Amino acid sequence: MAKRRGAVTATTTQMERGVADADLVVVCTPVEWVVDHVCQAADACGNGALITDAGSTKEQIVTGVERRLASDVRQRVSFVGSHPMAGSQLSGVQHASADLFEDRVAIVTPSRHTPLADCRRVEDFWRSLGARVHRCSPRAHDQAVAAVSHLPHLVAAALAAATPTDDLPLVGSGWRDTTRIAAADVELWRQILTDNRSHILKSLNKFAKVLSAFQQALDKDDQARLVRLLAAGKHNRDAVGN
Amino acid sequence: MAKRRGAVTATTTQMERGVADADLVVVCTPVEWVVDHVCQAADACGNGALITDAGSTKEQIVTGVERRLASDVRQRVSFVGSHPMAGSQLSGVQHASADLFEDRVAIVTPSRHTPLADCRRVEDFWRSLGARVHRCSPRAHDQAVAAVSHLPHLVAAALAAATPTDDLPLVGSGWRDTTRIAAADVELWRQILTDNRSHILKSLNKFAKVLSAFQQALDKDDQARLVRLLAAGKHNRDAVGN
Repeated sequence: MAKRRGAVTATTTQMERGVADADLVVVCTPVEWVVDHVCQAADACGNGALITDAGSTKEQIVTGVERRLASDVRQRVSFVGSHPMAGSQLSGVQHASADLFEDRVAIVTPSRHTPLADCRRVEDFWRSLGARVHRCSPRAHDQAVAAVSHLPHLVAAALAAATPTDDLPLVGSGWRDTTRIAAADVELWRQILTDNRSHILKSLNKFAKVLSAFQQALDKDDQARLVRLLAAGKHNRDAVGN
Repeated sequence: MAKRRGAVTATTTQMERGVADADLVVVCTPVEWVVDHVCQAADACGNGALITDAGSTKEQIVTGVERRLASDVRQRVSFVGSHPMAGSQLSGVQHASADLFEDRVAIVTPSRHTPLADCRRVEDFWRSLGARVHRCSPRAHDQAVAAVSHLPHLVAAALAAATPTDDLPLVGSGWRDTTRIAAADVELWRQILTDNRSHILKSLNKFAKVLSAFQQALDKDDQARLVRLLAAGKHNRDAVGN
């Protein structure tokens, strides 16, 4: 199907054949498997090849790859972690689009050992697809993304799960937007939430405090507080735009 | 501007002139003001006129109108509450669209005193705009809408408010979708959340329990429970579709 849609020119299910002549390898598998696949690709790559990934978490992947790659392999091949923040709840090549990365953020996460030139090559790759590149450490990535991606996913799933089945025929565009990402693949997100759970728990704790403030404002009919809370949400949402 | 866009044929800011010859009056003001405006319109309407509204809460509006309308006025004019579930976080005639109600749910909420013929006239009106009509009591409306509209709004606002400002440049489409409705008008939503706070507090309580289950699953690294929670969210979201 990917060939018919013009998404790829050649395919193989054999890693060694796939990466043998590659200048750049992009590993796009669920986060628990990225380290294994990067190391397999590195063993089979030619000299000077550059490997990156598209995983939604970075610290365990980057430290895992650096721990696992043999030193002779590291002489020949480079790995730099990436997280292109694009895509939707849908998966499969039937939902592919050529401008998926246009004007989206791609986070590139060099470690202290990453040669700057390799980092720049990976950044140039994402820029060539139209992405806006943001560079930070794997740890800073995981902390920020817990707040802007992983917590929203958990909240959307919780909101969808908490909706009484009998009321589902009445949902409008508000519920649809707010819960959209809850339709994403469960196993993919089990891995992401598990990998980054320490940062997510901190973000969740902060969210629960705001939620509790809303609950108290409603319970005590404290309208001034209710306005402050709604205005704080609107302020951050307006800052981002559509 | 509404005239230039072809949204209306005539305008007036004088209620009495506006409703004098009307067969149908639709009051579209924030929920706290609907009762006043319905009663003002009823006083100025001709015999046989039908009044409805578009407020997001129904019990206080319907009981308020029935309590306030003088019995001689009630002989001449009918009121049936409505809640067309359409629109977005945007307001103003520049965001108007002719197919706003196409395939959206419009809830019509007769009381025990509403003549069936009046209820049907209001339902026919919403159907003529393309809406799917759902009929229930004002109380059943407020309970269901707390779960599918008011709680999602509160959660979206809390999520946007809890996001650290420094992380806002990194948000992707997940955060944007999940928080979109937090950009809506604060005063409008202060009124809605306040009006329906008893039902919203119950829905919020249920949501907080699911959120706490997520928190425990992450904290104890209980992956089977995490999968059950994600799957419950996906199940409800998939049942609704795009």
